[in-house]
Amino acid sequence: MEETFVPFRGIKNDLQKRLMCYKQDWTGGLNAGFRILAPTTYIFFASAIPVISFGEQMERDTDGILTAVQTLSSTALCGIIHSIIGGQPLLILGVAEPTVIMYTFMFNFAKSRPDLGSKLFLAWTGWVCMWTALLLFLLAILGACSIINRFTRVAGELFGLLIAMLFMQEAIKGLIHEFHIPEREDPASTEFQSSWRFGNGMFALILSFGLLLTALKSRKARSWRYGSGRLRGFVADYGVPLMVLLWTAVSYIPTGNIPKGIPRRLFTPNPWSHGAYENWTVIKDMLNVPVLYIIGAFIPATMIAVLYYFDHSVASQLSQQKEFNLRKPPSFHYDLLLLGFMVILCGLIGIPPSNGVIPQSPMHTKSLATLKHQLLRTRLVATARNCMRNEESLGQIYGSMQDAYWQMQTPLTHQEPPAPGLKELKESTIQLALSMGNINSAVDESIFDVEKEIDDLLPVEVKEQRVSNLLQSLMVGGCVAAMPFLKMIPTSLLWGYFAFMAIENLPGNQFWERILFIFTASSRRYKVLEGSHATYVETVPFKIIAVFTFFQTTYLLVCFGITWVPIAGVLFPLMIMLLVPVRQYILPKFFKGAHLQDLDAAEYEEIPALPLNLSAEGALSRTASFAEDGEMLDGIMTRSRGEVRRICSPKVTSLSSTVKPSKEFTSRSKSMVPR
Amino acid sequence: MEETFVPFRGIKNDLQKRLMCYKQDWTGGLNAGFRILAPTTYIFFASAIPVISFGEQMERDTDGILTAVQTLSSTALCGIIHSIIGGQPLLILGVAEPTVIMYTFMFNFAKSRPDLGSKLFLAWTGWVCMWTALLLFLLAILGACSIINRFTRVAGELFGLLIAMLFMQEAIKGLIHEFHIPEREDPASTEFQSSWRFGNGMFALILSFGLLLTALKSRKARSWRYGSGRLRGFVADYGVPLMVLLWTAVSYIPTGNIPKGIPRRLFTPNPWSHGAYENWTVIKDMLNVPVLYIIGAFIPATMIAVLYYFDHSVASQLSQQKEFNLRKPPSFHYDLLLLGFMVILCGLIGIPPSNGVIPQSPMHTKSLATLKHQLLRTRLVATARNCMRNEESLGQIYGSMQDAYWQMQTPLTHQEPPAPGLKELKESTIQLALSMGNINSAVDESIFDVEKEIDDLLPVEVKEQRVSNLLQSLMVGGCVAAMPFLKMIPTSLLWGYFAFMAIENLPGNQFWERILFIFTASSRRYKVLEGSHATYVETVPFKIIAVFTFFQTTYLLVCFGITWVPIAGVLFPLMIMLLVPVRQYILPKFFKGAHLQDLDAAEYEEIPALPLNLSAEGALSRTASFAEDGEMLDGIMTRSRGEVRRICSPKVTSLSSTVKPSKEFTSRSKSMVPR
Repeated sequence: MEETFVPFRGIKNDLQKRLMCYKQDWTGGLNAGFRILAPTTYIFFASAIPVISFGEQMERDTDGILTAVQTLSSTALCGIIHSIIGGQPLLILGVAEPTVIMYTFMFNFAKSRPDLGSKLFLAWTGWVCMWTALLLFLLAILGACSIINRFTRVAGELFGLLIAMLFMQEAIKGLIHEFHIPEREDPASTEFQSSWRFGNGMFALILSFGLLLTALKSRKARSWRYGSGRLRGFVADYGVPLMVLLWTAVSYIPTGNIPKGIPRRLFTPNPWSHGAYENWTVIKDMLNVPVLYIIGAFIPATMIAVLYYFDHSVASQLSQQKEFNLRKPPSFHYDLLLLGFMVILCGLIGIPPSNGVIPQSPMHTKSLATLKHQLLRTRLVATARNCMRNEESLGQIYGSMQDAYWQMQTPLTHQEPPAPGLKELKESTIQLALSMGNINSAVDESIFDVEKEIDDLLPVEVKEQRVSNLLQSLMVGGCVAAMPFLKMIPTSLLWGYFAFMAIENLPGNQFWERILFIFTASSRRYKVLEGSHATYVETVPFKIIAVFTFFQTTYLLVCFGITWVPIAGVLFPLMIMLLVPVRQYILPKFFKGAHLQDLDAAEYEEIPALPLNLSAEGALSRTASFAEDGEMLDGIMTRSRGEVRRICSPKVTSLSSTVKPSKEFTSRSKSMVPR
Repeated sequence: MEETFVPFRGIKNDLQKRLMCYKQDWTGGLNAGFRILAPTTYIFFASAIPVISFGEQMERDTDGILTAVQTLSSTALCGIIHSIIGGQPLLILGVAEPTVIMYTFMFNFAKSRPDLGSKLFLAWTGWVCMWTALLLFLLAILGACSIINRFTRVAGELFGLLIAMLFMQEAIKGLIHEFHIPEREDPASTEFQSSWRFGNGMFALILSFGLLLTALKSRKARSWRYGSGRLRGFVADYGVPLMVLLWTAVSYIPTGNIPKGIPRRLFTPNPWSHGAYENWTVIKDMLNVPVLYIIGAFIPATMIAVLYYFDHSVASQLSQQKEFNLRKPPSFHYDLLLLGFMVILCGLIGIPPSNGVIPQSPMHTKSLATLKHQLLRTRLVATARNCMRNEESLGQIYGSMQDAYWQMQTPLTHQEPPAPGLKELKESTIQLALSMGNINSAVDESIFDVEKEIDDLLPVEVKEQRVSNLLQSLMVGGCVAAMPFLKMIPTSLLWGYFAFMAIENLPGNQFWERILFIFTASSRRYKVLEGSHATYVETVPFKIIAVFTFFQTTYLLVCFGITWVPIAGVLFPLMIMLLVPVRQYILPKFFKGAHLQDLDAAEYEEIPALPLNLSAEGALSRTASFAEDGEMLDGIMTRSRGEVRRICSPKVTSLSSTVKPSKEFTSRSKSMVPR
């Protein structure tokens, strides 16, 4: 992305580039077949559960004017619009916590003013949305998103970890609340006696920890030893929904004389119940708002605009990190413009607006990388097996696999160099053939274990398309209708799911991995070097890593502290924005350039999108089924979010020549680590 | 052990052989220094917790005549006697569940007879003990234990798994009870209202699962990446006591208006409270028992004698399995004789007798193997490091290590061949030196990672001594005095601990591992072959393994069913005894001899004890400290209880020559496994 502040140029560029791949966004997604449902349901849960919980929170704080029905509607509506006419379809939209806080603040303000009152609250927020949208238009048109370029790994990962901390905080708060009497409920009813509250709290602990532990385990199902590959793949893909179902069922086990309210379940009214749909006609009240307040609405609007500008762009950027090797162009300016329109729409129908959310957006990309890996893998393994059946030589097998790989990437321009992964595969297979004495003889699986080699060598790629985003938005919309079923979910599962989301997003975050690295016993650091690891582990002295991480951690804690400040706390992203000049002007005074480059590559230039072939992809997907064997997937998808240096893993030891360097390398790097 | 039925010969042999190493039993233990506390506390908990729980059970069932004070006293007393003058000091004694069931049965019988009544109950059991002892004397003198020879792996492991199932059943029962009103308590008190019972049950679930999960994790602390080696070693050695303390502390967190009885804690009266010491003078009532009942006492006595004969011998045998490579002789006959005397003693002072227990006895041996490994390891690593500091060549290093190893084994007879582990180490190091080009140049750790090589190659050996058994018995005795502190432990921790014991004993049990192997997806079976594994995995066809395991599982379930039969159920060991003829005469008709040999080696001869040097061992222990690094320990100690075939692990890939066989081997075995 070039840094341009010429009005409209950014938007125009975005539109031009994304239109080029618009058709492929749909065909590619549809070609993936039913497998697209795995990332879709995964993201649907990550999207819907927090939105439901924020809705419940809003209901308490706005005397029931806004409920989960409105937050879900907003998420669904904006999601559908964005997935169809938005720029970057990897971006996931939703009602986020800062929005809830701002709306709560505005509600309290409106209620305290006799000439507004809670009756005109939504009408007034309509005006706030108008102003917000105006500011967003300005920012989009003037190319403000170009600044996102200067936003480096250090800031992005700090933001990611902060969000994880906030989710974890939410989980802990929620669990503690299970022991207390909820507001707006009758404290005299049976289930709020201290004895039943104790039981409810304990049960909530069991349900939330149960969900957390089993969901984390199920995500690793691909590496289980037991069960068929199909079953393992199914559990890994749909583990989270399955576990929510399972633990909801468990919550119904205690029967007998246990009061109805234990465990506590979702509270949201049905969308068709009285009073739940007043908001939709808010537009007719908007002119009743006194002029003074219409003008005053500009003040909260600036806060919200800054917030949305930042959150939307960062969420988009985090879902397009360099390590994902995306092929399609970003669309920061146009997406911000579109967000403005959606804010107006939400304001006019009296629902809180949605914006790009973290961690859901990067989770979406990750799950699509898993999908793409499965598709590629299935195809290449099938090709290689087919060749072996025909008793072809290693050279022939490699040729066929390369063809298949190219076919899935760029069938029209065969001049393109093969991806690095396949190049390595070629070298290793040929070396193997040489060591076996004959490159032209037939090969069987005892020599060339195609499944394992491919897992090691396939590059990370992402199935970039619009179908998963559209489907998940439709499913979120379906939640509004399915409210009677949603109400069966115990609230404690929400807290468990929040903790799950916080933990699920830690691997791959280099900031987090550096913290772990610092606490790794010095005698065990070789283990980090033996696995996939980022460059800095080898090139930057341990002490420098520690100091850099300490600085980052302190900064994180300051940001976390700021979130506790009433109302102004929602502006904590400004603190993260402040990291841009800190990184650019202050850090270089304390750290060597080379070290900084390894710890936090600041390119100040956008990831160049690889040449894209529009009609490509997808050809293979008709052969797709659940991966029979794909254990490496988990490792690849989580570890490789950092720019990874892969040293010869012990698995490739079939090639005697690759073994020695690995060993030597390990010991060399070990001696570098201070003991 | 020769099969002899000449009266007294077995006892004489046992005594002669064990007397030879009696002094070393003490000096060896004392030389280990404070490290002996790790296995001691580990076994103390495994010993005390079930005994306390059986005591509580007995208290309910005998109207408070016998309590945990009596069961603990018996365990401590018999343990002290056995550890000092017993034959096999690896054997752990304790009051076991069958004893509790028999005593309950006898109590109900006595209570129903007006001429006995609960007043003469203990006096009558005194007579039962006399008869039991008489039968045990006869069995010991006539050499009945020789039959234990015919008791093969198939029977021993079935028994082990059955005990694990019974412990797990106890854990589940206990947890369900936490939701109900306990017997003999006032159902009207606050804590037994249905609301508080619900809370208590839920809290119990949290405490017991918390203990179970954290205790299992802590046992693996040595392989953690974080924390210093010292800390990790400490957590691995003392994890179970630490976790019991931790979760007891957690149980005190809920305060406020929660009734005192939540969570439920141990109930046992203090030993100095009124009525708790009536049993000690039971001898003066014994002549008041009507003659008819004195004679009739023979009937329960036969059941108990059969039970003890079987349990005591099998517990002893399981603690001396071949894979432990014990150096000191067994002592089945003499130990049974001694058990007779202890039964008399217990009978006369009115406490239930103790006998050899499973799984504590094999757990004891395992923990001592870990200890011995640490001691050997510390010494050898220190030796090798020292040599490297002096820039010695690989040949010299190996020589010094061999010297150190011999010194710890047999300093007087250097003619003995070195242990197989060290031989392999020599080969691998020399090959390595050749591959590096020079066998005489100085070596550093980058080439020869001594810590890792040693972990792979040290043979399993056990620190055989009497100190740990004596100390743990004394600690059990100390529990009687510490009753006010014990009462702080929530009962739910007992159930968690029972589950822990059941699970802790599964790895290494080939029966269990065969069950897992059968459920391993066919595409994942190569993983079993890649790790350490028993011979049968390679030599016996999958189908035969499945059929054999199915037969064994059916037999196990039948035995488990029998334990549910009232009273007669305690004789379930007879069913396992029946396996001896089944294995000897029936199984060979259905399975090939070679397959049977691999699945269940029936040598019908005792493990030959390796030549023993009495004044040996121990020299190294003064250098002992917490192992800086000993991750392999866990693997070695758990996996290697089966006779293990170790194929070249990926860790030894520094030797290029060892790599290819491993790879070829894996694929060869893979093709044998049906797909």
